[in-house]
Amino acid sequence: MKATVYVTIKENVLDPQGVAVQGGLHSLGFNEVGKVRIGKYLELELDTTDRAEAEARLKVMCEKLLANTVVEDYRFELED
Amino acid sequence: MKATVYVTIKENVLDPQGVAVQGGLHSLGFNEVGKVRIGKYLELELDTTDRAEAEARLKVMCEKLLANTVVEDYRFELED
Repeated sequence: MKATVYVTIKENVLDPQGVAVQGGLHSLGFNEVGKVRIGKYLELELDTTDRAEAEARLKVMCEKLLANTVVEDYRFELED
Repeated sequence: MKATVYVTIKENVLDPQGVAVQGGLHSLGFNEVGKVRIGKYLELELDTTDRAEAEARLKVMCEKLLANTVVEDYRFELED
């Protein structure tokens, strides 16, 4: 089973990396670029066939290691 | 218009961050986790309504700044 996890900075938390990339794009002449937010994108291979269990365990992985839930949100998708 | 950009490490390039996260998950008892690959996930607001032009310019942004095309792949989606 393959899992895709998206970790994003919460809406009301400052994203300095996004601000820096926005500045870089403006310097290159891409003035149409407004807010930029940068997150993480993870692909995990899971050696399991039980979808419900995979979801439950993936939630724990996100809470414990993959995301810092104080300042980040996460969501994931599972494919067989 | 809103753009979502996914930047991933090319399949045949080593991803040390992914290897570290895999090790961390194994240490926490998630032994079902196989290969882990970590990429970037960017959300950009674009002040434009011309979809074709937005796509063309986004491609240039990716090539010039957002992705290192020597070792990374990118893909993007546009929403109105």
